[in-house]
Order: sequence, then C-alpha cells, then structure tokens
Amino acid sequence: MAMAAKLQGVTTHVVMPNSCPEYKKRTVLSYGANLTQCEPAAQDIAQTVRQVQHATGAIFISGAEHPDVISGHGTMGLELLRQVRNLDAVVMPVGTGGMLSGVSVIIKSIRPEIRVYGAEPEVANDAAMSLSSGERCTFSRFPQSIADGLNGNIGTVPWTYIRSNVDDIFTVSEDEIKIAMRLVWERMKLVVEPSGVVGVAAALSDSFKARAGGCKNVAVILSGGNVDLSKLSEFLQM
Amino acid sequence: MAMAAKLQGVTTHVVMPNSCPEYKKRTVLSYGANLTQCEPAAQDIAQTVRQVQHATGAIFISGAEHPDVISGHGTMGLELLRQVRNLDAVVMPVGTGGMLSGVSVIIKSIRPEIRVYGAEPEVANDAAMSLSSGERCTFSRFPQSIADGLNGNIGTVPWTYIRSNVDDIFTVSEDEIKIAMRLVWERMKLVVEPSGVVGVAAALSDSFKARAGGCKNVAVILSGGNVDLSKLSEFLQM
Repeated sequence: MAMAAKLQGVTTHVVMPNSCPEYKKRTVLSYGANLTQCEPAAQDIAQTVRQVQHATGAIFISGAEHPDVISGHGTMGLELLRQVRNLDAVVMPVGTGGMLSGVSVIIKSIRPEIRVYGAEPEVANDAAMSLSSGERCTFSRFPQSIADGLNGNIGTVPWTYIRSNVDDIFTVSEDEIKIAMRLVWERMKLVVEPSGVVGVAAALSDSFKARAGGCKNVAVILSGGNVDLSKLSEFLQM
Repeated sequence: MAMAAKLQGVTTHVVMPNSCPEYKKRTVLSYGANLTQCEPAAQDIAQTVRQVQHATGAIFISGAEHPDVISGHGTMGLELLRQVRNLDAVVMPVGTGGMLSGVSVIIKSIRPEIRVYGAEPEVANDAAMSLSSGERCTFSRFPQSIADGLNGNIGTVPWTYIRSNVDDIFTVSEDEIKIAMRLVWERMKLVVEPSGVVGVAAALSDSFKARAGGCKNVAVILSGGNVDLSKLSEFLQM
C-alpha cells in the first residue's frame, strides 16, 4: 500500500498494531507513508483508524475487507491457472482472510474441481473454527503466534466468500512454522516471514496427507517477506 | 554439481576446504555426494583431489578451470542478452574466475560495446591486481573475507579469458559487502551469501560511479545462496 501510494504520488496514512515487527514499520516509513501505531486489539485498531480519518480526511481502505483489495488478491489465482497445468489444490495462509477470499472466488469460478485450502497457526485458528462450525468465530484476546500476520480475526466480508468457496482449513504448530521457514530460506533461498510459510507447513503436515490425499499438484502461496533479521535466530530456535 | 550428479545417477566426490560454511557441507551431503575436506591452501586442495582420484578413479572437474563449467556460466550472459534491452554493463563477483570468464566471453563476442566488470573483496583482490598489472597474481596465504566463495585465487584458464574480455575489476570493503547483503535480504527478499552480493556492493560504490559513470542499465549477477543462518547476525554486524 505504501509503495503503491508513493508511485502514484498519493499521501498515505498507515495504522499498524505496535506488535508488528520493527522492520515492517521502518519499511512503511521508508516508502514515505505516515505511520500511526496502536494496541493490537480489533477495537483499538478501529478506533485509531477513525481518529486518523477524522484528522486527515483520508479514505479508509481495509486490507481485509475492501473489495478492490480482495479482487487484487484474486489475480494470484488467475496467474496460477495460467501458469500451472493439472493443478489439484491451492494452499495459502489465512489471517483476516482477504487473500483466501480473492483467490478462492477466482479458482472456484473458473475451475471448481481444484481444491482451495487455507492454513493458519493452531493458536490463531479462528478461520478453522469458523469453517467447521459454519459461523464466524473471533478471538477477543489477540493470539501470539510467531506468524504475526495471521493473528488478526477473519473479517466479515472475507468470511462470506470463505464459507462458500474454501474446502478445508489446516492448522499448524509453531514448530511446524519454524521448520517450514528454515526449509524455504535454506533451499528455496527466499526470505519469507513466518506468516508467509504457513501454507508450506500445512502442505507438509500429516493432516494434509490424510485430508487432502488425492492431491498431487499442489500450489502453495508464499506471502509476506517482512522479517526482522535481528530476530531470525529466535524464529528458527525450537 | 552434487545435485546434477544425483539427478543423473552418477557418484560424485566433492573436495571442499574446511573453511567452507557448515551449511554448504550439509547441503552437498544431503544431495548424496561424498565429501572430503582439506586445508584451504591451493596445494592442499590439489593434493586432496589427486588422492581422491587415485582412490576412486573419478574424473576431475575443476569448478574454476573446466571448459564445460565455464561454458555453462556463459549461458547467464546469453540469458541476460535475451532478457534485457539496452544493457550498458554487467557486474559479477570474481573468485577463481569461472563465471566471469564464461559471461565475459559471451557478452564480448555478441555485444562488445557492453562493459563487463568483476567485483571482489579488497582483502582478496588478486583479480584486480592481475588485471592492472597484466600478469596473474595469486595469494600464497588464503584471504579471510566474509565472502568466503571469493577467497580462492584466480585460475590460469579463467585468467586468459578475463585479461582480454573484462573492462575493469572493482574491490569492496567487508562493510560494503554486509550493507549490500542486508539490502538484498530486506528489500529483494532473496537469501544470497556474502560472496553473491559483492557485485551489488560494487555497483553501489563511489568508485563504480567514478569509473563506470556512463552506465545506466547495469545488470548485477547474484550468485550463491549458501548461508549458515546461525551465522547471519555475525554477517550483518558492523
């Protein structure tokens, strides 16, 4: 968002929970955005957004709920369909759910036989609980997974798409996230943040083998490379 | 080499100086190669290679000197010419010189007006000294740059290509290497080893601006992603 606004010459105000990594804050600032920090609870974020809007007259673009953001995420689904033949399944992280919404709508509209799976930390399993119960579940206390991008609750707009388009949601342990992260860094040579490798962790899990058994060609979306390198040893320690 | 041999079902023996990162050794072993370690001096490496050949009957493929390896490196030059229009210069790390040889031969054969530059650590500046003196210079004591892949002396075969095809060789400090590494990791999201970012460090240096001033479209080759993640904080510390 910060980079897009910079390229378009638009002033941006970013509201970010203070639990976000320092590096993510520095990056947003370096692209010229104005940064306002707040407590990580949903009501604190909403209140801070309202304050910033009131003070600046800015338009609110929700990373989870805005239809244009969800449509933009959907283009990843189009790219996958163009680039990969014989795709059996797509797995991706689910936090507030915008990416899973957009990609699942595209995939299910064009190739409904391809399975669409979400992946999230066990300690932040609101999407999995929602899908299994059929009702949107939320945490009142912010979870504390190292996959910090997935600690937010699933949004109301994403939930309407996810409930009807997503086949299953897998949960992974903190250790499984760390193992996947080391694998992606050491062998794929890609800097991906803990949240970004949760789909890899899910695809490698025993429960994936059990519940998504028939899938041979599985695409995994790696999303997010905001890693505080000074905390890397902590991320990889088990 | 280890992975190529595995894919072809060929037994490989890799001789590696014990100064190489542990992670690089683990990777070679994980691809099924047999690993023999030795002291890092050139004569120790040569003697160990002879012993392994004598014991196993293996054919020796020098990473620096073998014509097929140099030709293989050259394909990077072909890819660059195909993918980038209006290329003014190519910059890449130079250690034993195989990559710089192969790429420079291709570029100068097809588009001689494109400048070809090498980059190496100040403390391992044998290629720069060779090019400026016109005679191949070598270190008798192994240099100790964090860019460990560039500590070896320039080979005799590469030297014959480099002397006639390379326009200039830039040297960079250890701190410049660390700054380039952080930049590549944090902003390009790529895991590249210290040796692999030396071309980036050179392209960002004041001496590059001074000596390669007219170059607007500069390609930098990032080569090598063997990083011991447990040593990352050491690599990034200044």
